[in-house]
Amino acid sequence: MLEKIDLKQKLKKDEYDKKMDQYGDLLGKLQRECREAKIPVIILVEGWRGAMRTDIINEMMQKMDSRGFKVFSASKMTEEQRKQPFFTSFWKQLPSYGNIAVYHRSWYFLKNEHVVADKSQVGHWLNTSYSHIRAFEKQLTDDGYVLLKFFVHVSKKQQKENMEKLNKIYGKNWKKLDVEEHDDADYDKFINAYEEMFAETDTENAPWHLIAGDDERFATVQIVESIVKTLQNALAAAEIRAQHRNIILPPRHVALNNVLEKVDLTKSLTKEEYKAEFAKCREKLKQLQLDLYEAQRSLIVAFEGWDAGGKGGAIKRLARSLDPLGYAVNPYAAPNPVEKQFHYMWRFWIKMPRAGEIAIFDRTWYGRVMVERIEHFATDAEWQRAYGEINETEAQWAEHGTIVCKFWLQIDKDEQYKRFKERENDPEKEWKITEEDWRNRDKWDAYEAAVNEMLIRTSTDYAPWTVVEGNSKYYARIKVLKTVIDAIEKAIK
Amino acid sequence: MLEKIDLKQKLKKDEYDKKMDQYGDLLGKLQRECREAKIPVIILVEGWRGAMRTDIINEMMQKMDSRGFKVFSASKMTEEQRKQPFFTSFWKQLPSYGNIAVYHRSWYFLKNEHVVADKSQVGHWLNTSYSHIRAFEKQLTDDGYVLLKFFVHVSKKQQKENMEKLNKIYGKNWKKLDVEEHDDADYDKFINAYEEMFAETDTENAPWHLIAGDDERFATVQIVESIVKTLQNALAAAEIRAQHRNIILPPRHVALNNVLEKVDLTKSLTKEEYKAEFAKCREKLKQLQLDLYEAQRSLIVAFEGWDAGGKGGAIKRLARSLDPLGYAVNPYAAPNPVEKQFHYMWRFWIKMPRAGEIAIFDRTWYGRVMVERIEHFATDAEWQRAYGEINETEAQWAEHGTIVCKFWLQIDKDEQYKRFKERENDPEKEWKITEEDWRNRDKWDAYEAAVNEMLIRTSTDYAPWTVVEGNSKYYARIKVLKTVIDAIEKAIK
Repeated sequence: MLEKIDLKQKLKKDEYDKKMDQYGDLLGKLQRECREAKIPVIILVEGWRGAMRTDIINEMMQKMDSRGFKVFSASKMTEEQRKQPFFTSFWKQLPSYGNIAVYHRSWYFLKNEHVVADKSQVGHWLNTSYSHIRAFEKQLTDDGYVLLKFFVHVSKKQQKENMEKLNKIYGKNWKKLDVEEHDDADYDKFINAYEEMFAETDTENAPWHLIAGDDERFATVQIVESIVKTLQNALAAAEIRAQHRNIILPPRHVALNNVLEKVDLTKSLTKEEYKAEFAKCREKLKQLQLDLYEAQRSLIVAFEGWDAGGKGGAIKRLARSLDPLGYAVNPYAAPNPVEKQFHYMWRFWIKMPRAGEIAIFDRTWYGRVMVERIEHFATDAEWQRAYGEINETEAQWAEHGTIVCKFWLQIDKDEQYKRFKERENDPEKEWKITEEDWRNRDKWDAYEAAVNEMLIRTSTDYAPWTVVEGNSKYYARIKVLKTVIDAIEKAIK
Repeated sequence: MLEKIDLKQKLKKDEYDKKMDQYGDLLGKLQRECREAKIPVIILVEGWRGAMRTDIINEMMQKMDSRGFKVFSASKMTEEQRKQPFFTSFWKQLPSYGNIAVYHRSWYFLKNEHVVADKSQVGHWLNTSYSHIRAFEKQLTDDGYVLLKFFVHVSKKQQKENMEKLNKIYGKNWKKLDVEEHDDADYDKFINAYEEMFAETDTENAPWHLIAGDDERFATVQIVESIVKTLQNALAAAEIRAQHRNIILPPRHVALNNVLEKVDLTKSLTKEEYKAEFAKCREKLKQLQLDLYEAQRSLIVAFEGWDAGGKGGAIKRLARSLDPLGYAVNPYAAPNPVEKQFHYMWRFWIKMPRAGEIAIFDRTWYGRVMVERIEHFATDAEWQRAYGEINETEAQWAEHGTIVCKFWLQIDKDEQYKRFKERENDPEKEWKITEEDWRNRDKWDAYEAAVNEMLIRTSTDYAPWTVVEGNSKYYARIKVLKTVIDAIEKAIK
């Protein structure tokens, strides 16, 4: 694609000033309108080293309100950030609805560094597949994010001139704010990587804008003009989308095995069996946690289940077996006002475990296809899309080397009633039971259907569901511990 | 203090189980009550290496709901975290109101590492003075945080035994989850450091609890018992405090110079002078930003001023002079629901610049002594205490090497009226003016008094206020730029 670009295009100073004034006013206005319409925007400015991207971004920023956006660069990631699943940092830096993030270097930088560099040096965590990049971008644009991808192209000759100019002004110092792996851009090595990148990721929802960059003024105006037009379109589209938000999709037919019906809830353990098993599991897990750390692998343990299904107790026993410095328990309720300003996966991504550590999730991203589905907090289109989004996301974690265990704690309706009543009658446990629990119980059948569909659609090799027979708490806790033990052993032995 | 501790105290298994059951139930209940009463709790478990602190914390955690607390360790800080002002990480990890943070190693660990280690190796950023530690702890307890500081003491002999035991169970691996600078605890070297620590920081609001740790069971019960009693007291005290919350303090008399009255608002620049000066400042700042990075120093630029005082314009010109990768603009409005769950300084601490970078604050922590004072969002006791708290905080930043510039953008009442009207009549600027601006204007005199007191009480050598003559926007912008330039040059040349 690059060879088709006419690099001779130029803009005179007065033309430039005129256009920038004209677009500049528009840009400020559009930024405010996007904020009001709660449209989040992500702008990537990729391109050759020495393509004066810093200056271009700076010019563009002058036309906007600096309070509504942040500038990031993937080239500034710390070693620790790089050791988390590929997209973790980008999720953490996600602009909330109505705000703008500008990337001087984005996920494409990491990808290309990996493609071009000696793989043994760069480390596997820098890599991801283009299909994951497409999935990541699609999740964002489906959620209403505007994603603008620019590639500033310069000729080999112009690149050399620009870099000499920068060296002259700032000395070798200028490179320090813009640390990149390669000291001199190896033009020919990168050109193939870039062409592959365009071929793989020039998608309908997030197309590449190729910018002729030999003339900096021309490049800047092209970029600002594209932003203006894209935001105008996005605002118009958002209005249309808002009008169609509540259209009800026809139900999709799935050959629904009733997975839950087949669970054998008579399985149980005696107190003595439980005690003996628990002691064994505990010793085992203590050792495996150290092995996990040694191997720098991380572990996600996700808990879902009926109210009073025994999540709390199971998490407690799992935690008791672990060194508190190596794990965190992340509890989730309905999203708070800040969390509501982001894509629904954001609040989970920001709690990814560090290399060698364990993150326990008490309720999870599966809320999207359970409570959000049933209570209509998500539209039909949103929750139906979520199965695929979740599978993609878990695949990204697993590919990075994160071990993913997911538990559904199953009890029957009678057992739940018994436990609710016990809680109501015990002053020590009374706090655990609320009106909402009773209301949810009334929707048992709707939840059962949603859980069944969830278990079928999101059980994968790389992130399997374990349905836990939960009527016997002893049995359930040991099954959870043994499943986690097996998963770690399978992964690192 | 340590030699007074009777290390021979022991507890038998059955006594231990009985006590832990008894306190355990209480602990869970108290945790829930603290959550309801929105009392945040910080528990430090310091002590000798090999004092089995991990096991003690683990036992204690079993009695609580793991969803309400997190465990941290200062020994796990990354290099980057260590290069920010001393307390930054601890502020970032602060539990929100109603939650609990447990420290396996706390700020005392860093302090002691520095005291004991070879200073040239450890780096100055690890250090802070005991007076800063006292101030930090006082700020938290004044805000209602319960701070429990435990020191687990063991004899030299017991330490050796414990460490051999751990080595036997886990091999050398066990140390990896608990990375500390010293491979074998140098008992005699540390004992003096610890005694100094007690002498300096055993305060009324945050006393040390010295725990006899040769018998692990005895130690655990002592700690759990102390937590139970402290939380019971805290709950009772919170109730009393709530009743007295709105007592109005008598005004304190300050010999108030009217600082604002003396500002010469006729100072101005022509457009041509401005353009020439701006170009010079811009070149200068570009270079200084690189020097700042080179020196790994960071810079805070804080903006306050009247509505329509020109903050936005000044920030824009400052930003235009900087590489966007090296700075961030952090705008602040009224605290959002999440921010309200923390100490008022929290939302600023979490935006501290990294080493070599610049953080621009558009409105600041001074809101505490302006809008929160005038609108009674803070009690009299709270905002009057804030002057001292802010001075301490800025001293901590400055001592770390962070350069602090604070600007008050001053205009007179007529000029504000003119600008408000201009905004109302310009469709491009209309969004900038709200009903609230007019309401604030009605309170001009109250604000003027508050600003005067603020400027007098919080102008320090290490973090001086610059009052900017703002009726001429050109003059104001250049004064801001020149002040920042001077501050950087003074600091790093």
